[in-house]
Amino acid sequence: MMKAGPSQEEIRRHNLGALLRFVHVRGPASRAILAENLGLNRSTIMALTSDLTAAGLVREELPRTPGRRAGRPSLVVRPESTRVYVLAFDVGVDRLTVARVGLGGVILDRREAARGRVAASGGASGAADPNEMVNALAAAARSLVRKAGDEATCVGAALAFPGIVRRSDDQVMFGPNLDVGGMAIGEVLSRRLGLGVPVAVCNDANLGAIAEHERGAGVGVNDLIYLHGDVGVGGGIITGGRLLGGEDGYGGEIGHMVVNPGGRRCACGSRGCLEAEVGERTLLDLAGRQESPDVPGREAVRAVVDAAARGDVVARDALHRVGTWLGRGVADLVNIFNPGMVIFGGTLRDVYLGAAAQIRSEVATGALAASRERVKLRTAALGDDTTLVGAAEFAFADVLADPVQVLARLRGAPASAPVP
Amino acid sequence: MMKAGPSQEEIRRHNLGALLRFVHVRGPASRAILAENLGLNRSTIMALTSDLTAAGLVREELPRTPGRRAGRPSLVVRPESTRVYVLAFDVGVDRLTVARVGLGGVILDRREAARGRVAASGGASGAADPNEMVNALAAAARSLVRKAGDEATCVGAALAFPGIVRRSDDQVMFGPNLDVGGMAIGEVLSRRLGLGVPVAVCNDANLGAIAEHERGAGVGVNDLIYLHGDVGVGGGIITGGRLLGGEDGYGGEIGHMVVNPGGRRCACGSRGCLEAEVGERTLLDLAGRQESPDVPGREAVRAVVDAAARGDVVARDALHRVGTWLGRGVADLVNIFNPGMVIFGGTLRDVYLGAAAQIRSEVATGALAASRERVKLRTAALGDDTTLVGAAEFAFADVLADPVQVLARLRGAPASAPVP
Repeated sequence: MMKAGPSQEEIRRHNLGALLRFVHVRGPASRAILAENLGLNRSTIMALTSDLTAAGLVREELPRTPGRRAGRPSLVVRPESTRVYVLAFDVGVDRLTVARVGLGGVILDRREAARGRVAASGGASGAADPNEMVNALAAAARSLVRKAGDEATCVGAALAFPGIVRRSDDQVMFGPNLDVGGMAIGEVLSRRLGLGVPVAVCNDANLGAIAEHERGAGVGVNDLIYLHGDVGVGGGIITGGRLLGGEDGYGGEIGHMVVNPGGRRCACGSRGCLEAEVGERTLLDLAGRQESPDVPGREAVRAVVDAAARGDVVARDALHRVGTWLGRGVADLVNIFNPGMVIFGGTLRDVYLGAAAQIRSEVATGALAASRERVKLRTAALGDDTTLVGAAEFAFADVLADPVQVLARLRGAPASAPVP
Repeated sequence: MMKAGPSQEEIRRHNLGALLRFVHVRGPASRAILAENLGLNRSTIMALTSDLTAAGLVREELPRTPGRRAGRPSLVVRPESTRVYVLAFDVGVDRLTVARVGLGGVILDRREAARGRVAASGGASGAADPNEMVNALAAAARSLVRKAGDEATCVGAALAFPGIVRRSDDQVMFGPNLDVGGMAIGEVLSRRLGLGVPVAVCNDANLGAIAEHERGAGVGVNDLIYLHGDVGVGGGIITGGRLLGGEDGYGGEIGHMVVNPGGRRCACGSRGCLEAEVGERTLLDLAGRQESPDVPGREAVRAVVDAAARGDVVARDALHRVGTWLGRGVADLVNIFNPGMVIFGGTLRDVYLGAAAQIRSEVATGALAASRERVKLRTAALGDDTTLVGAAEFAFADVLADPVQVLARLRGAPASAPVP
C-alpha cells in the first residue's frame, strides 16, 4: 500500500541525504552542479550545505584545478573524507582485510592478514577458529582507529562474509567453507571495538554487487548480476536498482542452482550445483593441482589460468570444462533476470579471463536471443577489493539516510571503553 | 542517484493516487479508516475525497451493513465501479477472453471464445491467424463497451500474451506457441477500439504475478514467484514488492532454465528447459495422450491428473516425472530468490495439485535449508482468471498514479470513431 506524502521535516532530511550521497558517490561538486542534479534551487543547496558543514560532514573550498573562466572561482562542496569514516571488514577464506574508508569512498588505510583455511576434508585447523578470527579483526580495526586520531569519527561498520546471513539478526545461517559455530560475529566485534556503532554482517557476494553497482563496472546499470568465487560461488543481484534480498535476506544464492543433475557433490548436500561444477576446488582438482598453505586458493586459480594460457593441456581442459558449466549457469540467469550486465569477481574473475570465449558461446546457445541481446559480460572493476568496498558502502547507508541525526547521536554517545 | 523531495502539487497527486488505490484494492472504507491507513488527517482526507468525487472516481454513501453503534453512521468512500472501468484481454493458446473490469477490481462483464491453436508441428491452422485473433478481440471489446453505455468511461486497457514482450514498445519478441508475425497487437487493437486509450501488451505470467500479489494468494508477500503453465511455461517474479522486469522487460523467463542438460528439445532451440520437461505437451506425451481440437490443453492436463488420482499407472508415472523436474526447478528458484511464496497457475495449478508431494520433496532435497524454511507453495487463488485480472490491474496503473489528470484528459479527448 502506498504511503501518504512526506512532511517538510522528512523532505529536509531526504534532501540532506541526497546532497551528501551525491558528493559521496560522484565526488566534490559545485553548488551549481548540485542544484542542477538534485533539482533544487541555489538557496536550498546553500542551506543544506551549511547544515552539513556545521555537522562536519562536508566542507566548501576552492577547486583544486582552477576553472578557465576569469573572476572568482565557484566553491566546491567536498566530503570530509578524513574526518568521517567507516570500518569495512572482509572475511575471505584465505585472508582477512580491515580498512578504514572515508566519506567519498576513499580507502584511507588498511590491514591484511593471511589465514589458515578449514581443510577441504572438513577438519578445522587452529587458525580457522572463529575466536581467533574475531581477535585478529578487532586488533586490526583498533590499530586503524588509533591511527585515525580523535578528530575522526567512525559512523558505521560492516563485514563481508562468505556465507548466507539472516537479515533480521545478522546471524550466519550457512557457511560451509568457513564455520563460525553460531557466533554472532557482528555483535562480538562491535563490543570489542567500543565505538558505539553496530557491525553489520552481510553476504560477501551481495556486497560485491552493491560495490560494482555504485563504484565499479555496473555504474548506471539497474539490473545486474555479480558472481563471486572464493572457495564457494556466491551471487549478488541488483534488480531495478535495488539488491535482491528475498524473504529473509538469503537471495542471490546462485551457487546452489543445479546445472548438472547427478554431477559433482556439493558442500550443501546436493549434486551438480554451480558451485560444485565451477568452484575453485573443482578447477584445481580437474587441473591435477592441490591447494596448499603456501599457495592459497586465489593464487592457485591464477596459476591454472596462466598455465592454460601457456599451453598446458590439462589446465586448458580443466578451464574449458569449468567455463562450459559457468556459461550454462550464466545463460540460465540471463533468461531468468534479463540483466544488463553480468560481472565476474573473486576467483571467477580469473576464470572468466581464461575462458571468456567458452562462456560467451554457452550464453549465446543457451539464452533466449531477446534476453541476451544487450547483456554485457564484465570482470569486477574493483578487482580484489569488490567485497571490501561493498562492506564500506553498506556501512555508510545510515549516515547517508539521515546525516545530521546519525552524527549527532554518535558524537553525543558516551564513549564506552573497548572490551579488550 | 536520489532525487530531491517532492513539491506540494506532487504530494497532492500522490495522496489522491494513494486514496484511490486504497479503495480500489481494499474496497470501500470510511474516512476514519482512510485517515489511519494513509497517515493523513481527516481534513486532508475530506479534501481528497471531494476532488475524487468531483472527478467521478469515487462516491460517498451510507454503509450497506449499518454499524452497531447508535447515532449517525459514518459515510464510506466507494470506488465508482460501474462508471470507471478498464478492458482486460487475455490471449491464451486455447481461448481468448475479454473483460470489462470496474474500479475496485470487479469483473463487470466478459466474453470468451475458444480458438484453434498452432499445431505442435509448427503449422498454423487458419484460426490461429493473428488478424483473426485481433478481429475477435476487438469485436468482443466493442460489444462490452456498447453495453456499458455512455455514462461509463474506459480508463485503460491491457493484454496478457503468452510470449516475451519488449517493454519499450510492447513488441512481442518471442512467442513460440503463438506466432503474431511481428504485428504490433497493442497499437492495432487500440486503433480498432477508438477509445483514446492505449492497449498495453504484457507477458501473461508477469501479469499473473501482479494479480496474485495484489488480489490473490500472495497478498502481503513481497517476494514471490508465480509459475504459469499454458502450452509453454512462464514466470512472473515479485522482488521487494515490485515486478522483476530486467533490462528490457523480459525478466522471469524461468521456463527456459535448463534443468535437464541433454533432455527434451524445447521450442527455444535448447534441450532440457523447464518448459520442455514440465510443459503440457510433455505431460500429455508421457501419459500417452494427444491434444485434440475437442479437448484443449488445460482440460487434457486435468484429465491426466484425474486419471492419476484414479490409479491409472501411466498417468501417475507421467505426473511423477513432471513433478520431479518441476520440483527441481522450484528448488533452484528458491535458492536464487529466497521467496516467501511460490504460486502455481494455469495448467501448473493442476500439475501441482496432482504432484504436490513430489514437488515438496524435491524442494526439501534441493534447496538450502535456510532459503526454503519459510517458503509457502500455493495454487493461484484467482484460478483461471489470474492473467486476466493481472491485465486489469496493469490497465488501472495510470489512473491510480494520477487519477484526476488521467480522467480529465480522457473526458476532454475528442472521440475518434473506432476503425471497423
